[in-house]
Amino acid sequence: MLTRIDHVGIACRDLTAKIAFYESVFGLTVASIEVNEAQGVKEAMLHVADCPAGSSYVQLLEPLGPDTPVGKFLERRGEGVHHVGYGVVNVTAALAAIGASGVRLIDERPRHGSMGAAIAFLHPSDVGGVLTELVQSVTNAA
Amino acid sequence: MLTRIDHVGIACRDLTAKIAFYESVFGLTVASIEVNEAQGVKEAMLHVADCPAGSSYVQLLEPLGPDTPVGKFLERRGEGVHHVGYGVVNVTAALAAIGASGVRLIDERPRHGSMGAAIAFLHPSDVGGVLTELVQSVTNAA
Repeated sequence: MLTRIDHVGIACRDLTAKIAFYESVFGLTVASIEVNEAQGVKEAMLHVADCPAGSSYVQLLEPLGPDTPVGKFLERRGEGVHHVGYGVVNVTAALAAIGASGVRLIDERPRHGSMGAAIAFLHPSDVGGVLTELVQSVTNAA
Repeated sequence: MLTRIDHVGIACRDLTAKIAFYESVFGLTVASIEVNEAQGVKEAMLHVADCPAGSSYVQLLEPLGPDTPVGKFLERRGEGVHHVGYGVVNVTAALAAIGASGVRLIDERPRHGSMGAAIAFLHPSDVGGVLTELVQSVTNAA
């Protein structure tokens, strides 16, 4: 079902500074920078690798305010890994199968993610404490 | 410098149960199960994808005891993402370059990781709260 590790989502307080860090220390390059008002974040996708089913990224997330999900995460946990996103061929089909297994879905239906992807989150309490995202990118649509 | 997301390392209390969960819900398959006494963990590598520079895995980590690094992590944070491992072609060269940038190295020299890899950890305080591992796998040695 999972075709790749699409991205690791990392919460940070200063997106510009963190982009510069990943560029200079690890040699990553920015593939996109977007504001997602619905999720309350400004985010950057930094390209790590191209895999057969799509690319892998480091996703840096700066909250648009303290009352956003990422803002609350920073307040509670500090900077660090916020979630893990896995590639799937068809996010709607994947949600149906995963929901049928008993895992609670944060998103019953896909919504808009980075770089035009259709995404959905699974409840971390049902995935061993890992906020888990399914990503159907525009390059791996069924 | 980074060739892929090698793995996401996830701390759990019951390795056998968590392996069964990732197999049944996400369709992953176990590539290896090892005990690493030096790191105080029993761990499983579950295969996600093959990428040009090597494979990507979910790494599940069960501590060998409460006084191990992963045992203390579980006590403090509960189950969840423990670290992120990135592939590199040459871990010794990568450590030299990253150390020169000012990031503190937990491991000044590579040590033994999963599946025969040479690995080294970077200090999370210098990588935005992310415990970051460099992985030179046996299939991507320089």
